Amino acid sequence: MSNLRERALALHKEHRGKLHVNVKMPVNDGNDLSLVYSPGVAEPCKEIAEDPEKIYDYTSKSNLVGVVSNGSAVLGLGNIGAGASMPVMEGKAALFKEFAGLDAFPICLDESDPEKLIQTIKMLEPTFGGINLEDIAAPDCFLIEQRLKEEMNIPVFHDDQHGTAIVTAAGLINALRIVDKKVENIKVVINGAGSAGVAVTKLLRTIGINNIIICDSIGPIYKGRTERMTPVKEELAELTNSQGVQGSLEDAIIGADVFIGVSVAGALTQEMVEVMSEDSIIFAMANPVPEIMPAEALAAGAKVIGTGRSDLPNQVNNVLAFPGIFRGALDCRASTINEEMKLAAVYGIADLIPEWELSPEYIIPQPFDKRVVPAVRGAVIEAAINSGAALLKKGNESVKTGI
Amino acid sequence: MSNLRERALALHKEHRGKLHVNVKMPVNDGNDLSLVYSPGVAEPCKEIAEDPEKIYDYTSKSNLVGVVSNGSAVLGLGNIGAGASMPVMEGKAALFKEFAGLDAFPICLDESDPEKLIQTIKMLEPTFGGINLEDIAAPDCFLIEQRLKEEMNIPVFHDDQHGTAIVTAAGLINALRIVDKKVENIKVVINGAGSAGVAVTKLLRTIGINNIIICDSIGPIYKGRTERMTPVKEELAELTNSQGVQGSLEDAIIGADVFIGVSVAGALTQEMVEVMSEDSIIFAMANPVPEIMPAEALAAGAKVIGTGRSDLPNQVNNVLAFPGIFRGALDCRASTINEEMKLAAVYGIADLIPEWELSPEYIIPQPFDKRVVPAVRGAVIEAAINSGAALLKKGNESVKTGI
Repeated sequence: MSNLRERALALHKEHRGKLHVNVKMPVNDGNDLSLVYSPGVAEPCKEIAEDPEKIYDYTSKSNLVGVVSNGSAVLGLGNIGAGASMPVMEGKAALFKEFAGLDAFPICLDESDPEKLIQTIKMLEPTFGGINLEDIAAPDCFLIEQRLKEEMNIPVFHDDQHGTAIVTAAGLINALRIVDKKVENIKVVINGAGSAGVAVTKLLRTIGINNIIICDSIGPIYKGRTERMTPVKEELAELTNSQGVQGSLEDAIIGADVFIGVSVAGALTQEMVEVMSEDSIIFAMANPVPEIMPAEALAAGAKVIGTGRSDLPNQVNNVLAFPGIFRGALDCRASTINEEMKLAAVYGIADLIPEWELSPEYIIPQPFDKRVVPAVRGAVIEAAINSGAALLKKGNESVKTGI
Repeated sequence: MSNLRERALALHKEHRGKLHVNVKMPVNDGNDLSLVYSPGVAEPCKEIAEDPEKIYDYTSKSNLVGVVSNGSAVLGLGNIGAGASMPVMEGKAALFKEFAGLDAFPICLDESDPEKLIQTIKMLEPTFGGINLEDIAAPDCFLIEQRLKEEMNIPVFHDDQHGTAIVTAAGLINALRIVDKKVENIKVVINGAGSAGVAVTKLLRTIGINNIIICDSIGPIYKGRTERMTPVKEELAELTNSQGVQGSLEDAIIGADVFIGVSVAGALTQEMVEVMSEDSIIFAMANPVPEIMPAEALAAGAKVIGTGRSDLPNQVNNVLAFPGIFRGALDCRASTINEEMKLAAVYGIADLIPEWELSPEYIIPQPFDKRVVPAVRGAVIEAAINSGAALLKKGNESVKTGI
């Protein structure tokens, strides 16, 4: 780890960050200048002023994603602030480029008030083709995303919520294929009610899982609980835990088929795994140390284990989802990233692994599997068109073009 | 012109805008990913959280300029809005890169309220090393720049004001050398009291010109005028036109040594030039058609003529100023771009042409003269250090490094 630390610091310092902005065409003489800038630049301006849609033809907007954060919930580090979150946002922008060819730019906003963040992000709409919200703390992140989705005309996607949920759901679908259980019959316990836990809960309901208990740091969320509730937890209490289980994670986990951890290292013990159902599935995604180490979980009877780590099998990594989702959304000029498109991404990822290749150690593709982005992109475009979110239709040049 | 129109539209459409965001290092495998993103990226984040200054070491901030506009006063086009201004802001960002190696990014803000713009631009401070304000209408631009300079810790520079003023002043200094007149003895009439006219007035006072009359569309601004005044015009009435000349541009121009037009085509007639002093100097910078064409001005007795056009001698082009100014300001980590630094830029540009090379047709360097950016950069760094604005001192590696 100390070696990683030194190498990471050295790499960042050597290059002074990770991004540069380059010009697509030469600007070497007065002729170039007259086209790229004054007076020629007035022509595309006039075209856009007359027909605002033409901004997609004449500017970089159609390929630009804003990676927006206030650094209030940086993975594993907490509320470190906008400036200190800049390396993560640059890194995220780098992944957009490397995985999907999208131009992405970090927008680190020094602000904690959700209403002011909403107003500012709305103002940025002319520049970007889509907004990826990142590392914004719950519960503000829910309000911010919801409002921006309602009030902006470009796709807005909080990756900590939906990216995690999509990859988790894809992995779970394949894990269930291995243990031969059906979504309608299983019991799932989700530990962690932050942005990821909430989004996982909602997406698992969408794929047909109705028996879910979600726990926060004081135990299961249930209808009538009064301690540490928020509007989002009230909503979850209505949607989940129909039997009203109270107490602690130990109580909730009894007989569960699936444990999904988006919480902290060590939250799941071998004793808890032992009281789960046969052939249990465990996604222990705390970073960098999972809720339980795979070897311990296997010894206690679990069948399929996923974590967030690259050095263990079944890495649940958002990079499987967000590049292809934005690539697809921008290529068909989707006005939003709706539930249908997220669901399409889930199956796009899961179905990349044919049944005969599935094994307890291979339920999701590797991050650098080249098939992932095209598969997710295609599924997302299809769903965007079918759900009416796509402004460009099939047959359009942009939609057909690969990445 | 129609040929230019077609070529400009084709170029913008072919490339879909002018900028892309690239990654400085490869991201080809899990090892790269662990350094550029999770888990290695946490290390620079922790360093910055502990010492905010380290954001300059570990992120792209030290080389990043935000080109910020709301499109309310786009050159020659007026208030076309944030979206339609995007080609100009991308173009400006392209010039920052091509002329000075700076990474610049367009931030087009869909907002007209100055207070909201101020709050939003302040929030962007973590990402950028400097802010170039562009094409924001007067009088809001004055308040916005002033407030941001007071409330932000990075350089803020409204190029329409100061870039124009700096290049105009540089050209004027050399023009005066040709006609052998001294700043303290001349009378200057400035036509146009928008952002450029106001900044030119102030900078010419700084270089020692005290006899200035500034006119807006209804005539000279004078103390006691009541029609169409603003706080900025009230301030100008105090600083200029000590004789209280009233009436029209025709009245103001009598006996003037210098006319500076930042107004509209045709504003200066041959009759007006005829009543100016001997060896008059005319900067007719209206775009694309100047206040008077050079041939007409010469025929009426003028000696030195500058315009904004690349196809005429003495092009007064902001590109002579802003790339070197920001390059210098960022390289020495200037906290602001102060009057001393602007003045240094003026003489940095003017003094590039030795006395024996000066002629009525060559008073300012050409836009693509490779000597300009290093000269302006060096002068700006020197002035920043001497005026206490530079956070990095001479001898520091960054300050020494060329571009």
